[in-house]
Amino acid sequence: MTDQVKALFYDVFGTLADFRTSIAREAEALLKPKGYALDWPAFADAWRGQYQPALEEVRSGRRPYCKLDILHRENLETVLQRFGVTGLSDDEKDTLTLGWHRLDAWPDVPQGLARLKTKFWLAPLSNGNISLMVDLARRNNFPWDAILGADIAQDFKPKPRVYLAAAAAFDLKPQQCTLVAAHSRDLAAAAAQGLRTAHVARPNEHGPGTGETAPSVPVDYAVKSLVELAEKLGV
Amino acid sequence: MTDQVKALFYDVFGTLADFRTSIAREAEALLKPKGYALDWPAFADAWRGQYQPALEEVRSGRRPYCKLDILHRENLETVLQRFGVTGLSDDEKDTLTLGWHRLDAWPDVPQGLARLKTKFWLAPLSNGNISLMVDLARRNNFPWDAILGADIAQDFKPKPRVYLAAAAAFDLKPQQCTLVAAHSRDLAAAAAQGLRTAHVARPNEHGPGTGETAPSVPVDYAVKSLVELAEKLGV
Repeated sequence: MTDQVKALFYDVFGTLADFRTSIAREAEALLKPKGYALDWPAFADAWRGQYQPALEEVRSGRRPYCKLDILHRENLETVLQRFGVTGLSDDEKDTLTLGWHRLDAWPDVPQGLARLKTKFWLAPLSNGNISLMVDLARRNNFPWDAILGADIAQDFKPKPRVYLAAAAAFDLKPQQCTLVAAHSRDLAAAAAQGLRTAHVARPNEHGPGTGETAPSVPVDYAVKSLVELAEKLGV
Repeated sequence: MTDQVKALFYDVFGTLADFRTSIAREAEALLKPKGYALDWPAFADAWRGQYQPALEEVRSGRRPYCKLDILHRENLETVLQRFGVTGLSDDEKDTLTLGWHRLDAWPDVPQGLARLKTKFWLAPLSNGNISLMVDLARRNNFPWDAILGADIAQDFKPKPRVYLAAAAAFDLKPQQCTLVAAHSRDLAAAAAQGLRTAHVARPNEHGPGTGETAPSVPVDYAVKSLVELAEKLGV
């Protein structure tokens, strides 16, 4: 077995998908007709702000693994309360939660993935559950070879086992896999397990000028788009 | 949540892929240049014949779950000995074992799956490991939404958990899923867990006239090809 890279794994929220704009759109679509005039991007940010604390409950072992959909649904209650939204039915809350299944990709992603697929095995390595990944893939033409990540590891990044379970599923050594992500913390955790790393700048992830424009940790590649990554990898 | 079928799961060996012809070809390609003149289809049959006994070691709990690739590799030793083949290197045995990653689909499969994909989520529900499924998908253009089956359930069909884990991965009730298979035993086990079932006749699975031409258990659909299944399901 060689050490040549065979698989590219992808972080999804923020790296491939623009969750902020999409969730703001989903919230507005449901709540504006009910008379709410919220700062929709702030609503999205607040919901996403509950993400890491909820994951930490599982990562720490205080709570058994559960799908991200469940955590998103629980966190929604907190966010609705904070924004003074009341009277939604359970069905409406479920519909809003499934807004995370309707995220749009950054514009470079479909073309970049299509090119990268010709040379590498591709899989999401996300904290999102399998069904969420399938919905995003169908919406955005993500040409995955398999859905890896939290559900198959039964834990959340940046726990080591999530990266290692993805490599093992493809029968690869960690150094034969590259994690592509917009977040230095994710990349550092992958590198600690022996994976190679590629940073994609998403400068507008949490609003204009808020994302990482460059990695804060050593990486194998640093690019501005998946198309640039494809060029650097010769495909 | 309705009871409408949303996902089609597929048995792979025999149902989608003609393992007998493919493994015979792989064995001949490696062994004929070494001077062996075996009954190549019989070699394939013998190798496949070791399959269920090996799975049963895991299903019974006598052995921890391991990927089918490992079992195929172990069973190969038995078959080589039976056919009097000696002197293969470990690399050659590995190459022959990976012949299971190079199976060809029955002719109706790519077109049938492409049509069915327009209406349903599609995933293999096979005892083969994820990497094996990816290789077959890339070779034969299987348009999977995810790779489900033994690896994610950590057990082998027809154990109930394998069917239930596939439905759970897609957030579906069993009755929202249909198992498509050429084997009545597999379909009966799926039905016992509440899945719907579709039998595909593969009359030449183990050689001319050897496969199930019709199901021996009640099924929701009985067809001769995936194209016919697509027609019956209105896609």
